[in-house]
Amino acid sequence: MFRHTDYLQFDAKPEKPDPVYAHKLQELIGGAYGEMTVTMQYLFQGWSCRMPGKCKDLIMDVATEEMGHVEMTAIMVARLLEGAPATATTKAAAADPVVGAVLGGMDPQQAIVTGGGPLLADSNGYPWNGRYIVASGNLLADFRANAAAEAQGRVQTARLYNMTDDPGVRNMLKFNLARDTLHQNLWLKAIEELQADGLETTVAPNALFDEEYAEHATSVWHLSDGTAGHEGSWAAAPQPDGMHEFGYLLDPEPLGGPGSASAPDPKLYATYDGKQGEPSGPALGTETGLAGKIKDALT
Amino acid sequence: MFRHTDYLQFDAKPEKPDPVYAHKLQELIGGAYGEMTVTMQYLFQGWSCRMPGKCKDLIMDVATEEMGHVEMTAIMVARLLEGAPATATTKAAAADPVVGAVLGGMDPQQAIVTGGGPLLADSNGYPWNGRYIVASGNLLADFRANAAAEAQGRVQTARLYNMTDDPGVRNMLKFNLARDTLHQNLWLKAIEELQADGLETTVAPNALFDEEYAEHATSVWHLSDGTAGHEGSWAAAPQPDGMHEFGYLLDPEPLGGPGSASAPDPKLYATYDGKQGEPSGPALGTETGLAGKIKDALT
Amino acid sequence: MFRHTDYLQFDAKPEKPDPVYAHKLQELIGGAYGEMTVTMQYLFQGWSCRMPGKCKDLIMDVATEEMGHVEMTAIMVARLLEGAPATATTKAAAADPVVGAVLGGMDPQQAIVTGGGPLLADSNGYPWNGRYIVASGNLLADFRANAAAEAQGRVQTARLYNMTDDPGVRNMLKFNLARDTLHQNLWLKAIEELQADGLETTVAPNALFDEEYAEHATSVWHLSDGTAGHEGSWAAAPQPDGMHEFGYLLDPEPLGGPGSASAPDPKLYATYDGKQGEPSGPALGTETGLAGKIKDALT
Amino acid sequence: MFRHTDYLQFDAKPEKPDPVYAHKLQELIGGAYGEMTVTMQYLFQGWSCRMPGKCKDLIMDVATEEMGHVEMTAIMVARLLEGAPATATTKAAAADPVVGAVLGGMDPQQAIVTGGGPLLADSNGYPWNGRYIVASGNLLADFRANAAAEAQGRVQTARLYNMTDDPGVRNMLKFNLARDTLHQNLWLKAIEELQADGLETTVAPNALFDEEYAEHATSVWHLSDGTAGHEGSWAAAPQPDGMHEFGYLLDPEPLGGPGSASAPDPKLYATYDGKQGEPSGPALGTETGLAGKIKDALT
Amino acid sequence: MFRHTDYLQFDAKPEKPDPVYAHKLQELIGGAYGEMTVTMQYLFQGWSCRMPGKCKDLIMDVATEEMGHVEMTAIMVARLLEGAPATATTKAAAADPVVGAVLGGMDPQQAIVTGGGPLLADSNGYPWNGRYIVASGNLLADFRANAAAEAQGRVQTARLYNMTDDPGVRNMLKFNLARDTLHQNLWLKAIEELQADGLETTVAPNALFDEEYAEHATSVWHLSDGTAGHEGSWAAAPQPDGMHEFGYLLDPEPLGGPGSASAPDPKLYATYDGKQGEPSGPALGTETGLAGKIKDALT
Amino acid sequence: MFRHTDYLQFDAKPEKPDPVYAHKLQELIGGAYGEMTVTMQYLFQGWSCRMPGKCKDLIMDVATEEMGHVEMTAIMVARLLEGAPATATTKAAAADPVVGAVLGGMDPQQAIVTGGGPLLADSNGYPWNGRYIVASGNLLADFRANAAAEAQGRVQTARLYNMTDDPGVRNMLKFNLARDTLHQNLWLKAIEELQADGLETTVAPNALFDEEYAEHATSVWHLSDGTAGHEGSWAAAPQPDGMHEFGYLLDPEPLGGPGSASAPDPKLYATYDGKQGEPSGPALGTETGLAGKIKDALT
Repeated sequence: MFRHTDYLQFDAKPEKPDPVYAHKLQELIGGAYGEMTVTMQYLFQGWSCRMPGKCKDLIMDVATEEMGHVEMTAIMVARLLEGAPATATTKAAAADPVVGAVLGGMDPQQAIVTGGGPLLADSNGYPWNGRYIVASGNLLADFRANAAAEAQGRVQTARLYNMTDDPGVRNMLKFNLARDTLHQNLWLKAIEELQADGLETTVAPNALFDEEYAEHATSVWHLSDGTAGHEGSWAAAPQPDGMHEFGYLLDPEPLGGPGSASAPDPKLYATYDGKQGEPSGPALGTETGLAGKIKDALT
Repeated sequence: MFRHTDYLQFDAKPEKPDPVYAHKLQELIGGAYGEMTVTMQYLFQGWSCRMPGKCKDLIMDVATEEMGHVEMTAIMVARLLEGAPATATTKAAAADPVVGAVLGGMDPQQAIVTGGGPLLADSNGYPWNGRYIVASGNLLADFRANAAAEAQGRVQTARLYNMTDDPGVRNMLKFNLARDTLHQNLWLKAIEELQADGLETTVAPNALFDEEYAEHATSVWHLSDGTAGHEGSWAAAPQPDGMHEFGYLLDPEPLGGPGSASAPDPKLYATYDGKQGEPSGPALGTETGLAGKIKDALT
Repeated sequence: MFRHTDYLQFDAKPEKPDPVYAHKLQELIGGAYGEMTVTMQYLFQGWSCRMPGKCKDLIMDVATEEMGHVEMTAIMVARLLEGAPATATTKAAAADPVVGAVLGGMDPQQAIVTGGGPLLADSNGYPWNGRYIVASGNLLADFRANAAAEAQGRVQTARLYNMTDDPGVRNMLKFNLARDTLHQNLWLKAIEELQADGLETTVAPNALFDEEYAEHATSVWHLSDGTAGHEGSWAAAPQPDGMHEFGYLLDPEPLGGPGSASAPDPKLYATYDGKQGEPSGPALGTETGLAGKIKDALT
Repeated sequence: MFRHTDYLQFDAKPEKPDPVYAHKLQELIGGAYGEMTVTMQYLFQGWSCRMPGKCKDLIMDVATEEMGHVEMTAIMVARLLEGAPATATTKAAAADPVVGAVLGGMDPQQAIVTGGGPLLADSNGYPWNGRYIVASGNLLADFRANAAAEAQGRVQTARLYNMTDDPGVRNMLKFNLARDTLHQNLWLKAIEELQADGLETTVAPNALFDEEYAEHATSVWHLSDGTAGHEGSWAAAPQPDGMHEFGYLLDPEPLGGPGSASAPDPKLYATYDGKQGEPSGPALGTETGLAGKIKDALT
Repeated sequence: MFRHTDYLQFDAKPEKPDPVYAHKLQELIGGAYGEMTVTMQYLFQGWSCRMPGKCKDLIMDVATEEMGHVEMTAIMVARLLEGAPATATTKAAAADPVVGAVLGGMDPQQAIVTGGGPLLADSNGYPWNGRYIVASGNLLADFRANAAAEAQGRVQTARLYNMTDDPGVRNMLKFNLARDTLHQNLWLKAIEELQADGLETTVAPNALFDEEYAEHATSVWHLSDGTAGHEGSWAAAPQPDGMHEFGYLLDPEPLGGPGSASAPDPKLYATYDGKQGEPSGPALGTETGLAGKIKDALT
Repeated sequence: MFRHTDYLQFDAKPEKPDPVYAHKLQELIGGAYGEMTVTMQYLFQGWSCRMPGKCKDLIMDVATEEMGHVEMTAIMVARLLEGAPATATTKAAAADPVVGAVLGGMDPQQAIVTGGGPLLADSNGYPWNGRYIVASGNLLADFRANAAAEAQGRVQTARLYNMTDDPGVRNMLKFNLARDTLHQNLWLKAIEELQADGLETTVAPNALFDEEYAEHATSVWHLSDGTAGHEGSWAAAPQPDGMHEFGYLLDPEPLGGPGSASAPDPKLYATYDGKQGEPSGPALGTETGLAGKIKDALT
């Protein structure tokens, strides 16, 4: 269960309104690596976590903080839109270059749909969606995704930092940058902890190493003609997992046969010249035809 | 420019058709962490890479390989669908439990739309889309995302491995698992290389450390009541970047003021009782009103 | 079955072209509360209506009208785009502030994709989609959604009205505003009628009141620290349904236990330390393990 | 800023696992009218609210509660999936009707992607997205949308209640049903309060009544041939706003002229026979042509 | 403006309910090539048509008919769902193979969301959206898309025809198949008419032939190793436009230089080793740096 | 399996950067008819092709070429963005009309998300998705879709050609235009080849002509009041398939009965007045009620 206070985690007070920047800042609310993504990603990771204890509690701590970042950014957008020329006409924009520059850079839905408030969308107006988050239950895979998300988030925040010189906006972003620094360190540390606790190793999931074809876990296939790819340490060195050596397959050939689909079901009307033999019909339920063989195989 | 051979990178020959498994395997084609995602993610990273040389060439090598994985998986789906009871009626499904079990687990679009072939969608039929990929130009942030994607991909492949006992399907998955192992190691190694070359450090981007509020880059805020979060090494230890110490703020209080939007533009018809003073109108272009001040500030 | 006349329900003749406004007007075509939404929402409500008669006929009357509003708005957009500087270059925009202001505010797809016509998308270019509509079959729930949709539609139309001073555009919007006024009244009246006919009451659906926990249907939980929430009439008064009293739980405590997921299936590779006991495997089909118990329970 | 406790607002303990029901319950998490929608809708309404005080505080109270409902439902899904036959093969499903029935009704991503946890998606696997929410700043329009959302939510919950006989699942739903009853009453009451406070009336927004064409705010247009539409009270009665009378236009004729697009820009290659005169080119920036007239008009 | 009659264009009466087939039939309502697509595609083509007369009138005739096909299919779905075991529990499905087979094949949202009615979505529950339609204003390009859409539509309808033996369902599909036959012929004929009228030729748009590199309009590039591609008539024959000859470039080499991005903007934090020279900063507005040159070039 | 060379199929070198044009050019990368669509459409058609030989090889040749077009266009976008004023502030835009014009026309995500590179999205920032492609297995239907896609692609390219005067950009587009010309001819020729080989005829699929209602495959229904629709050759002429005559039904009447849904399942809470008789309950599994009859019918 959650509780809320109206006091923001950190201040979100622009010195002056800037509706064009309010448009760009949408990326940090509803972009693929915005605050909404880390909030919901961490919440779903916490709710799917199978181990009550330090990991789950950490995830929920950070998730709850991120929810507050959505709030700070949303409030910032609303304030940046104060007094925006939302209802200025095209004529006014054409008559005054300042109005023109501002109108051209505004998000039309921030006026028409929200009346001067934030959207749950990115800086191109595309709505945030639930496929952005990942919560696989495998904590190594998920913490690695978290460290990646915080890195992308800090890169975007740093770019946005350079797009404004408003001291109030920068004040909030200086806080956000610091939290993104911390959180990158945090998830990297949490990965070390998983490994120290013997729960995971270098490769996720920590399983099926006896099943996979070990001989194919070693070499990069050189399939693009740039010649420098094998100059990196990844071309000949022990792999980070301590179990494999890197190699570089400079002139790789396909290992499989030709890739082609088989004779089609005539009732589905794929174009067919019969050269792959009589097509198998959907005969499941009788003993004839390929589908009958499926049934035989299955039962 | 690309070239193609019909020979697959590795074999994709199921021993027997299995239309229900063909449905599940869609996740590896068009899921958020399927082969299509890593293909396009690496291609766009390569095309946006600013440094001709080993990094770009490596990215393009792996990207080109992944394109071949989309192919292998797509061919596998087409073959698993051979002889599927695509046109069996509900009556037939109800009359024969085997047909019923198979029909209930099939993807209707694999019959109606593709005529027995793969979709560019995931195992819930949701289409793959371009917001799944990330190519920020910052290679630390991107390689971390790549390592995370390969980890999720191997977790999903491992789960799917356990959902079939078909030796032909498992044969391909054993190859895929090995490549996912290699690629996780690879991107981790590439991160080490970036750091060894002095191009990036631990935190992405390697910038704005003097600007961000260092005092807020240290402590996890304890905002969820689980008491074990501070038992981890992330509560008190040097941070991986070597520049900060971890801390744990056990009873954090908000640092900001109340989060509220300001007086609205009357022409946008937000409900308002006037208690925050006279609302500022969209007066940009004249010298009166708040918007006039925007103009003053901007020019 | 439908019939169509080329004559518009109302005129849609701008006095002058205005490609920037054509961009904004997309919201009324393909926005979440645009004409397309009410058209398809009412059509699907009519087609799912279980009672031939006055309600269904009313729904179909209004649905058919709304289809004509999509048409009027689409034609208006096409006309507003006449003579737009669609192929003006960036150089031309930079050389002439008027061209610059206009180009900056245009929708690129209205030129590149439709050749100067409307899109089936909103003012951020996001396509209209079928999840915007609701047709539950429960007419109280649906009419309430209709009244809400007409209210949002009129709010957006009113905002757009203020963004133009073209008499021809305003002429059409004056008609639309009036229809939105009528339709809000209409669905509110239709709700009264459902109640007068004894088909529905205040709460949808009119069912399960004996099953739900009545003691939890009374109090707002005070979970956010704003202190004024209980000053409203909703804090202590009879509820509109005449069956409950409002209350305000000022210091609510959780009623449930801790929220945690249980021991994981080892074949799905969630990270696990074993402290919640031996994980239950996917043993459905035998008599051992938890899944066996599922089967026992189910059969 | 938010805080979180691991204790759920209400218990979410199924008596027995039921992976098929876990699939259906996704609708209440990530459906268009699920808990995620009301959470984010209320949060964004609160953050855009222009009036500190009772309305904003109420909105934030309920928003914070709904966040806890997402949590309860997510935990319920994770628990319903315990011991699910996630890795059962098609062969196993075909061999055992119980396994077949369960596998056919499961969500493949709940196994492959989340490892036995909830998705942020609906019961068809479609991800939740930010276009589901509405926060216009106009509280009458928004509260009406809230009452509608709670009505749809209770209808869906009631249907799901009938799809299970598990006492633990029903226990949670009995709580949810009661909260949905309360919240419907609550938003209806809040609308009364807005009207009592003189902030809004019956029609949103409370503006432009002098501008709209009053004569078109009265009559339903009879455009569908069902004859019963005018038997309702909406055909002849005072309208709920007390300002208009209802009417029914039984044989309406179009008021506008033919709807046709004008002569096209030749550089956009619309097919054209020249019969509407010489097409206007993109001449903005000179004084000739239609676009020049745009410029004249604008400046 | 539109008018509607409750009488369907053709009967839509299933002999018996079949909720599994109701799920599949969604493809014809809201699939990428379903009735909704052709309806909206033709409407938007009509509204963007620049030539009042036979073409526009034809488009609107067919568009209006297709709207009635959405209706027929929607009604059919509602009727197929009559008496569906919508609230049957998993236990009931496991206990009775018939119930199990039916429940496994049903669309959960057709019960939970619409209460036994159609969705505006396809057979995988993905909502119909406005990007499915095309209305470019170029009638050759659009009529070709129309002929393609009718072909896909008839292929899907034919497949669905084979998935049922209900005489009532087949009755409607026999009508639909015939209309799809007619409409394919119709758009092909309309293309002939455009050509006969001298408005378009074989290639869309009928323009820029003098600008394009004619030498590259002749040969297929042999970039995939299948050896049979040049056995077709497309390898050496006059092209359908009568202006070019086909050729087959058996061993094509790239014509361009290496594809690489240039030195990055340092304020955007792309990883960079400086080897492509000093990066150009965002100096637009001054006379120095690359961006200054942009400005010079533009003004 | 694929191989890649860094050398582009054709040069992609703009003479000068132009970030506004980089925004528009996104349409050719990730638009519904951009290079990504034809690439993936042809690949999936090839992988689903049932006939090894000339058709499949041709499809794969062209698919592989198109992949290289995605690359050329992506590289072009990256180069057009060089030195863009990505971090210019709103203040700078307002102070300098040139900066203002450029900033207003830029894609914010090309700076914030990709750091000056291409997106996998269209010119409105909407991501490319897998529902854009079609691969039905029926080659007539698919080749017709291909010819249509190339036509739309050439129309859009031609429009974009007119939006720039940069010789380097035009150089690439002149190549693209020529390829689009060739590919339109190519797919038209391939359709002739399918027909010459006796695999398909004029109507797709080449089946069910004896089943469909031939009498309904003849006449256009005149449902829109434009009077010129029957002046075209499609009103009275042999149809292209040589099997039917065109006709024009000038005053068509509905052939079906009223479209209404039947009595609802009471457990789904559709509003109902009982006038269509006792509603049938979900009784599947017993012998009573309508659902029992379903079971009877099915078994």
